[in-house]
Amino acid sequence: MKPRQVVSDMDSYVPGKSQDEIASEFGVKKEDIIKLGSNENPWGPSPKAIEAIGEEINSINRYPESQLKDLVHEVALYAGVCDSQVIIGGDGADEIIDVLAKTFIEPDDEFIVPLPSYMYYEYLLKQYGAVPVYAKWDLDNNVLDVESIFDRITSKTKMIFLCSPNNPTGTLIDKIDLIEIAGKNPDVLVVVDEAYFEYSEVTNKDLINDYDNVFIIRTMSKVLGLAGMRIGYGLACEEIIEYMHRIKPVFSLTRLSYVAAINTFRDSEYIERSIKDGIESRDYLIAELSKINSLNVFESKSNFILIGVKDTGFTATEITKEFMKRGIIVRDCTSFKGLDEYWIRISICTMDENRKFIRVVHEVLG
Amino acid sequence: MKPRQVVSDMDSYVPGKSQDEIASEFGVKKEDIIKLGSNENPWGPSPKAIEAIGEEINSINRYPESQLKDLVHEVALYAGVCDSQVIIGGDGADEIIDVLAKTFIEPDDEFIVPLPSYMYYEYLLKQYGAVPVYAKWDLDNNVLDVESIFDRITSKTKMIFLCSPNNPTGTLIDKIDLIEIAGKNPDVLVVVDEAYFEYSEVTNKDLINDYDNVFIIRTMSKVLGLAGMRIGYGLACEEIIEYMHRIKPVFSLTRLSYVAAINTFRDSEYIERSIKDGIESRDYLIAELSKINSLNVFESKSNFILIGVKDTGFTATEITKEFMKRGIIVRDCTSFKGLDEYWIRISICTMDENRKFIRVVHEVLG
Repeated sequence: MKPRQVVSDMDSYVPGKSQDEIASEFGVKKEDIIKLGSNENPWGPSPKAIEAIGEEINSINRYPESQLKDLVHEVALYAGVCDSQVIIGGDGADEIIDVLAKTFIEPDDEFIVPLPSYMYYEYLLKQYGAVPVYAKWDLDNNVLDVESIFDRITSKTKMIFLCSPNNPTGTLIDKIDLIEIAGKNPDVLVVVDEAYFEYSEVTNKDLINDYDNVFIIRTMSKVLGLAGMRIGYGLACEEIIEYMHRIKPVFSLTRLSYVAAINTFRDSEYIERSIKDGIESRDYLIAELSKINSLNVFESKSNFILIGVKDTGFTATEITKEFMKRGIIVRDCTSFKGLDEYWIRISICTMDENRKFIRVVHEVLG
Repeated sequence: MKPRQVVSDMDSYVPGKSQDEIASEFGVKKEDIIKLGSNENPWGPSPKAIEAIGEEINSINRYPESQLKDLVHEVALYAGVCDSQVIIGGDGADEIIDVLAKTFIEPDDEFIVPLPSYMYYEYLLKQYGAVPVYAKWDLDNNVLDVESIFDRITSKTKMIFLCSPNNPTGTLIDKIDLIEIAGKNPDVLVVVDEAYFEYSEVTNKDLINDYDNVFIIRTMSKVLGLAGMRIGYGLACEEIIEYMHRIKPVFSLTRLSYVAAINTFRDSEYIERSIKDGIESRDYLIAELSKINSLNVFESKSNFILIGVKDTGFTATEITKEFMKRGIIVRDCTSFKGLDEYWIRISICTMDENRKFIRVVHEVLG
C-alpha cells in the first residue's frame, strides 16, 4: 500500500530507547535516575488527583464522558474565561495542535515558527501538508525577533506559533508584540503556547476577547503535575472552539485523566506550592550554574533553563552522555532547529536533586 | 477565522447529555443506571490492571513511555503475530482509524462501508476529505451482501471497512469473502474491525501474513474491560505499521493505560472468564427476548444484540425513553445509516442486570 506523499517523504521511524534500556545501557538503576529532560513537575501529582483516581478506578471498564462539562468549567474558572471559550485535549496540548491543524490547515498553507522553538508544531502541521517558514529568536538578547515574523508573513500564512515562555529559550514574548502581530493580520491564526505560563505569572488569555484570531494553548503536563495523563486545553473565541468540537476525537480523554484533572484544578494549595517551589528551584539552579564560567546560562521565566556548553570543550551530545553515566537525564538540544550542537536544556527538580546535579556538573567539568 | 471547507460543511456541534444530566432528567440515581448502550464488559476491569494502576499512580507527573515496547510485545503474544506487525492506539481503536486515514487518505478518495455498520469510520474519514460509498448488509439474512461491495469498487476506492462481528448487526463476515475482496483488490486497503472478535472466537489476523492490504483493528474497550482507558491496536504487515509510526501521536497513551493494558493481557484467567460469562449472558438474553413475539431479535456472535421493535408499536426513540425512565440505557439505532427508526441495540450485562432488564422489557411491552 502506498502512503500519502507527505508520509513517504518523512524520515523512517526509528524507535527510541525506553527508560529501562537507558538504565541498563548506562548501568544505573531506573529508580535512581534524575529526570531533568522533560520539564515535568518533580514533586509529583496533586494528592487530590491521586485520591480521585483511586475512587474512579473500578469504573475504567466504562467509556469516558464525552462532554467533559465539569472539566471545561474548572478550566474556565482557572483561566478566567467562559466555558464556551474552552476546548479540552485528550492527548495533552498535542491533541489541541492536531485538532487546530485539522480544522484550519489546507495543503500548501504556510505556518511561521521562530527558531528555536517547540518542534512538535512542525511535526504535526507537516502531516497536513503545511509548509514551515522560519522566523528567528534572537539568542544574543534572548527575545523574539519580532521583525523576522513580519518579514515572513505572506498571503499563504495560515498560522504563527509563538511559545511564551519560549521552549527552549525560557523567556517571554511581549504582549504588545502579540497584539501587533494579531491586530495587523486578522486572517492569520496567532497561536500562543502558554504551556509554561504559570512559572512566568504572565498570561495573554485576555486577548481572546479582543482578537478572534488568537488561540491560547495550555497543558496540565507541567506545573499541574499530570504529564502522564495527557491533558491539554485551548482557549479562543467561541466560533473557533465550536469548529474544533466538530472534529475533535469524542472519547480521547481517559476516565482517570478526567477526574485527575478536575481535582487538580480544585487543589489550589498544590498549584500555588508547585509554582512557588518551581520558581525557587529555577532561581537556585540559575544562581549556582551561573558561577561556572564555561556555561552560558540563559535567563528563564519557565521551569527549564537553556545552557550553552561550547566553552566546556564538550558538545551537547557528549556532555549529555557524561550526565547519563551518572544517572542524570538532560535534554540534548542538538535536534532543535535553530540551535547548533552546543546547547542543553535542564528542567527544575527538587532541592535534593538540584544539589546532586550541581555536584555532578562540577565533577563532569572538572 | 475560516475553517476548511470540510469542517464548514459539517453539522454544528451540539453537546450531548452527560450521565449526570440523564440521571437528573429521568429522576434515577446515577449509580442505579444499568448501561446496555455501549458494549462494555459489565464485570469491571481485571484486578491485575487495577493493582498495576495503583502501583504506577505516583508517577503520573512523568511523561509516558513513547515506545510502548512491553505492550507491543504483549499484544503480539496475545494476537499471535510479530512485534513489528503491531501498532498501539492511545485513543482506543479510534486513534488507529485516524492514523490509518492520515497515512493513506487523499482528498476525494473513496471508502466503502456496508450499511449498517460502525459510524465512526465515516465521521473520521470525511475529515480527511474522503467520500463514503455505501454497500449493503443484508438484514433479512444478517450477512454481508458481498456483491454490493464488489459493485461499489472503483479506481478511486482506497479503503473498505468491514466490521466482523459487525456492529450493530452482530454476525460475522466469512473469511473466504474477505480473502476474495483483498485478493482481487491489491491496491485497496481492506480494514477488518475485530473489536468484538473474542466473543465470536474467530479471527482473520492470519491474513496479514498473506495480504499486505489487510489491516486488522482491535480494541481493549470490549471484553478486555478497559473502555475508560482508551487503548486500541492494529495488526498489519510491517511496511504499513512502519508508515503509521511516522505520524502517530508520540505520547497519546497515558501511563496508567499502559500498565493497565500490559497487566490485563497477562491476566488470561480474567480474559477467559470474561469471554465465557459474556457468551453466557448473550445467549441468555437472546433466549429470553426471543420468547417475546413483538421483538425481532438478531443472532449475535458479539456482546450486543440488535433488536427490531417495529411490532411493539414503539419507535426506537420511544422505547429507549421508556427504558430510560426505568433506569436502563439502551442504544437507539435511529442514527445508524441503513437502519430505519425501529431498531435498538442492547449490550450484555451481568446476570442480575439481565434479569432486571427482562422484567422491565415485559413491563414496557405490557
